[in-house]
Amino acid sequence: MKGVCEMKLIVVGPGGKMGSLITQIAAGKDNIELIAGVGPVGRDYIGRDLGQVAMTGTNLGVPVVDNLQSVIDDCDVIIDFSTREMGLEVLKLCIAHKKGLVCGTTGFSSDEIQCFQDAGNEIPVLYAANTSKLVNVMNKLLEITAKTIGREADIEILEMHDQWKKDAPSGTSKEMGEIMAHVMGKELEDIAVYGRHGMAPREKGTIGYHSLRAGNIPSSHTVYFGFMGERLEITHHSYNWECFARGACDCAVYLDGKEPGFYTIQDVLQI
Amino acid sequence: MKGVCEMKLIVVGPGGKMGSLITQIAAGKDNIELIAGVGPVGRDYIGRDLGQVAMTGTNLGVPVVDNLQSVIDDCDVIIDFSTREMGLEVLKLCIAHKKGLVCGTTGFSSDEIQCFQDAGNEIPVLYAANTSKLVNVMNKLLEITAKTIGREADIEILEMHDQWKKDAPSGTSKEMGEIMAHVMGKELEDIAVYGRHGMAPREKGTIGYHSLRAGNIPSSHTVYFGFMGERLEITHHSYNWECFARGACDCAVYLDGKEPGFYTIQDVLQI
Amino acid sequence: MKGVCEMKLIVVGPGGKMGSLITQIAAGKDNIELIAGVGPVGRDYIGRDLGQVAMTGTNLGVPVVDNLQSVIDDCDVIIDFSTREMGLEVLKLCIAHKKGLVCGTTGFSSDEIQCFQDAGNEIPVLYAANTSKLVNVMNKLLEITAKTIGREADIEILEMHDQWKKDAPSGTSKEMGEIMAHVMGKELEDIAVYGRHGMAPREKGTIGYHSLRAGNIPSSHTVYFGFMGERLEITHHSYNWECFARGACDCAVYLDGKEPGFYTIQDVLQI
Amino acid sequence: MKGVCEMKLIVVGPGGKMGSLITQIAAGKDNIELIAGVGPVGRDYIGRDLGQVAMTGTNLGVPVVDNLQSVIDDCDVIIDFSTREMGLEVLKLCIAHKKGLVCGTTGFSSDEIQCFQDAGNEIPVLYAANTSKLVNVMNKLLEITAKTIGREADIEILEMHDQWKKDAPSGTSKEMGEIMAHVMGKELEDIAVYGRHGMAPREKGTIGYHSLRAGNIPSSHTVYFGFMGERLEITHHSYNWECFARGACDCAVYLDGKEPGFYTIQDVLQI
Repeated sequence: MKGVCEMKLIVVGPGGKMGSLITQIAAGKDNIELIAGVGPVGRDYIGRDLGQVAMTGTNLGVPVVDNLQSVIDDCDVIIDFSTREMGLEVLKLCIAHKKGLVCGTTGFSSDEIQCFQDAGNEIPVLYAANTSKLVNVMNKLLEITAKTIGREADIEILEMHDQWKKDAPSGTSKEMGEIMAHVMGKELEDIAVYGRHGMAPREKGTIGYHSLRAGNIPSSHTVYFGFMGERLEITHHSYNWECFARGACDCAVYLDGKEPGFYTIQDVLQI
Repeated sequence: MKGVCEMKLIVVGPGGKMGSLITQIAAGKDNIELIAGVGPVGRDYIGRDLGQVAMTGTNLGVPVVDNLQSVIDDCDVIIDFSTREMGLEVLKLCIAHKKGLVCGTTGFSSDEIQCFQDAGNEIPVLYAANTSKLVNVMNKLLEITAKTIGREADIEILEMHDQWKKDAPSGTSKEMGEIMAHVMGKELEDIAVYGRHGMAPREKGTIGYHSLRAGNIPSSHTVYFGFMGERLEITHHSYNWECFARGACDCAVYLDGKEPGFYTIQDVLQI
Repeated sequence: MKGVCEMKLIVVGPGGKMGSLITQIAAGKDNIELIAGVGPVGRDYIGRDLGQVAMTGTNLGVPVVDNLQSVIDDCDVIIDFSTREMGLEVLKLCIAHKKGLVCGTTGFSSDEIQCFQDAGNEIPVLYAANTSKLVNVMNKLLEITAKTIGREADIEILEMHDQWKKDAPSGTSKEMGEIMAHVMGKELEDIAVYGRHGMAPREKGTIGYHSLRAGNIPSSHTVYFGFMGERLEITHHSYNWECFARGACDCAVYLDGKEPGFYTIQDVLQI
Repeated sequence: MKGVCEMKLIVVGPGGKMGSLITQIAAGKDNIELIAGVGPVGRDYIGRDLGQVAMTGTNLGVPVVDNLQSVIDDCDVIIDFSTREMGLEVLKLCIAHKKGLVCGTTGFSSDEIQCFQDAGNEIPVLYAANTSKLVNVMNKLLEITAKTIGREADIEILEMHDQWKKDAPSGTSKEMGEIMAHVMGKELEDIAVYGRHGMAPREKGTIGYHSLRAGNIPSSHTVYFGFMGERLEITHHSYNWECFARGACDCAVYLDGKEPGFYTIQDVLQI
């Protein structure tokens, strides 16, 4: 039994890893009403119940369709974690129908990211490569800490991921390093050091990166600020992908009824 | 060989644990000139070289005296880590002679602390129960984090100290809890929970305290912010008392030449 | 396509949290052939494909039945994570049909546990309250460490679980404490201390327990051995229930073809 | 006031960092009697009281001499943390005078180490590059763990040291890696990976090294064993050099009255 003030949500890609999690989380929230899922043309699950496709445990009474246009006017906000191509198409339709958009899809060029920013003139839109709320809190704390003591501290980053992750360091740890470098008036590429071997004393003003890979460790990030006689550590642990889905749902609730604009998770957090 | 723009420092209690460390740190800094130490009347080290008393490794060419009044006019700032009685006397002399004061002595009543605050009308004065810079950075991060997500998070504090520490939890962890409680509109005593045993499910809105004691562990504090699917941790480790001495010296340098006022370490940090 | 030397497995309770995970893990292993699932009489999933019930992603071509007797002769080993009642019934049938049994069900009385031990005279049987392999490795390391330095060290245990866990400390941490107490010639109840508050200096020879609860933290256990100037920590993190299911499958493979006996996971690990 | 069953100890190098710490620790122990210190010819502290030279806080009533031969017959055991040259000379005198020797000096060639082992035919001798007791406990736990699950686990090592440490990884972490490699039938150099950058997926069977450097962090070592769904971590933290001095004193007490032999700290620990 849901109330009248629910936000009406469409989830793009409800058969995918993130889309199904988002649907599961949204289905459990009193202030969200799921009104449809949208999948690519030709998928065998088109036409089936959204709850079945996203494995929410019960039928939700609304379908997964392959045509966003046919359902978009009934919603308030759309969450998209899909592909570069689909994400751009969703953006166009959101602008045309004046609907809010939360996009967590990755792989866009900087020109394409600019399209999302420009869309902020017409609709409320939030783009985030990482929709975890606590990663975004951590990013703010890193900014403040680096601004205050970054020049005096020795900064090192340890990130842990599963054995199959191909790239090192992680995108999230790179963003952390960039945030800190910028408030210290530096570019990360000029001060980053990746691992140490042999004669390798620390150079003042660098940021050391350490990428640990083992088993199926969920994502962890720690930033160390080393002083004389003491150190400060800020750590984020995610246990699985749940936090990204929860963050996306909170972003969608936030966008509902907002003025047009390009928003970030730090706006949602009011940090 | 020191320059003309050095701050002239007197250290009270140079034979004590903190006083000797402060003297050692100050002796190694180019922008500080030690002009005297002050100890209690009757101590066998009165009249000896400050470097010998504080075990700096070399003679400093200035004495430890038992009469602050005889040397105070030659200094810019005084650092006092002594006793309640001596601390109050030092405060009086600083006001009378218009000298800056950094006080890290503990054990004052709230009325006495008020005297330090009032002294801010006449001299630059900084009182801090914990002069570690990174503990003070952490306190600011905790304030921001609790304000942003404190109501949504499950907050737990783990503090580790040596086996002989008599009280639990530590004063530093209590201050951390108070900072977080206040920005959430609560009093710590109403929401603190100390350990869990038996049937003890977590109550929403509480702050859990855990006081680990073993060997001679130097002081460590971690605050956990638990969400669904993720958590944020902020940790401070001190390795020994060095960080408190360094923080005190930095406070003294900061006070040199400042307008009268009651300052905090967060002013020094500009955080 | 599976080979002739596969172990033929029946999973009891494939619709439950542990049973479905075990079925998923077993379905992905080359050396295990699932031949049936067994659920309680009357469940709506009786008669359906085991793969569907356990959400393995594909049909497995074998059913979930409600009568173990009808399928037991086709299997080599049975894994049971169900209820006290069902577990005892499964034990009886395993003895009668000379089949290996891995039981991870909890809630048995000590008399009932004795029945499992006695069954070791007739069939290969392994009972474990915790089927994680690394928890069992950790237990062995704790035994060795406590035997070697337990009397000299200050031992503290920190365990972290989700906000809903009702009891503190966790069963796993109690077992860890008992293992260490026993090799030091003590009973855990005589030396355990749960949290500290107020004037609470550490007493030599005690084991301190700290039960942190927040969000949906998966299970973590750390044991600290504090010395003068150094400490040793042994930590186990589980990310979810996967490790218990993997451990159970490895136990079942180990039992296949074994002589009758009452086995433990430390036998499987050969530690 | 000391008893008749005290072990009579000579400390070589009491003016050095380790020698003075060892003297301080030994001076506080009821079962050790310090009978002399031995320093290099020409040092200004030759002839002074051992307590003064080693800064024990009180005079010990025994001198620092520059001639080991003049005092060696009065002792039971000698502890040497000095230089390669002095260490070899001390060894010769110990053999000639049938005295026990604990040597923690580093920089010997493998031929020279062999001399210490051969000396075990004539005197009780213990050589250790790392005299921390808990590092030696950890090494044993790593051996057992790697033997049991090393082939199944993803092994990673994180070591943290101060900003000035020139080499990476630390000698202690290399020894840990070698112990684990050997019980898995490998050579460390064939399986060690130092840091990761760019496209760098983990290769099965490798040991990853991560060398974090910041501030004046005391030595920390963690070994991670990553499985699916869980991981085990074993960590050693030292707070300063105290643990090495304490370990050396315990080794000396152990050697007192022992049969000739080449002993290790694992013998002292009986692990």
